[in-house]
Amino acid sequence: MKVGIVIFPSKKLQDLANSYRKRYDPHYSLIPPHLTLKSAFESSEEELGKISTELERISKKYGPFPLKTTKISSFYPVNNVIFFKVEPVAELEGLFDDLHSSFFGNPPEYTFVPHITIGQNLSNSEHADVYSQLRLLKIEHEETIDRFHLLYQLDNGVWNVYETFLLGK
Amino acid sequence: MKVGIVIFPSKKLQDLANSYRKRYDPHYSLIPPHLTLKSAFESSEEELGKISTELERISKKYGPFPLKTTKISSFYPVNNVIFFKVEPVAELEGLFDDLHSSFFGNPPEYTFVPHITIGQNLSNSEHADVYSQLRLLKIEHEETIDRFHLLYQLDNGVWNVYETFLLGK
Repeated sequence: MKVGIVIFPSKKLQDLANSYRKRYDPHYSLIPPHLTLKSAFESSEEELGKISTELERISKKYGPFPLKTTKISSFYPVNNVIFFKVEPVAELEGLFDDLHSSFFGNPPEYTFVPHITIGQNLSNSEHADVYSQLRLLKIEHEETIDRFHLLYQLDNGVWNVYETFLLGK
Repeated sequence: MKVGIVIFPSKKLQDLANSYRKRYDPHYSLIPPHLTLKSAFESSEEELGKISTELERISKKYGPFPLKTTKISSFYPVNNVIFFKVEPVAELEGLFDDLHSSFFGNPPEYTFVPHITIGQNLSNSEHADVYSQLRLLKIEHEETIDRFHLLYQLDNGVWNVYETFLLGK
């Protein structure tokens, strides 16, 4: 099955992200708003236990940290993905590095740009239209992140949580 | 915000339940298949911490236990709800009782009938039609449950996981 590792921000920030995702993100109904720490990879039900043990170890290394977002940005022209840009902090980068270590077998496919997607799979003209409006918005949000989640994907495409890992505990 | 406490069974049983829920359960897109331990109640973001501490305490009292389902049943005529009937075991009943203790303030509204809903909000004639077919199916499934989840509801109605609690740990 497919598994992935994400941070779910507060309900408040999820509700705000969903107000955009509803219109601009076809994954709206498959997963709540999230910051991806490790994108989907294959695992068996048996391997989940080992992954869980490793994530438990990693979660103890980092304390809670601030998640701050001040603007909406885009990966265009690489991807027509629009997102809340999240300011990088040492804990986020440490988590990302640890989740792409040799234990997990696969080095990252790209540089880590922490973000919460609010729009994707847009055509070039849709993207231009939507982004030209959203980029003008001021987002001023800061909160504390104290956990991350290991997810798995059901056959219908919906992601569910296998386990929560509390930072520093 | 609204919170609730559920058990998510294995991916395999969730996929099976979803094959029915897709057609018969309007909550299909709001929450994956689950066994409700405590239905939705109001909580503040601050109270979540206290609830989490209490759930941590309760989760240590019980070890992993078997979840066994052998048939599809219905709450008709009380409710037009069709479900996988889950055989009651001491751990499930203990969890239910502890989650309806004075700490949580509200005694249960009904006797605990452990189940995984696969159809609801059906008209009387739909219910009669669907249930007359489903009740003939043999479901033979057994697995081990080793965790439960504290959920909260987003503004769009979707439930997300706040925290996982591992039984006996």
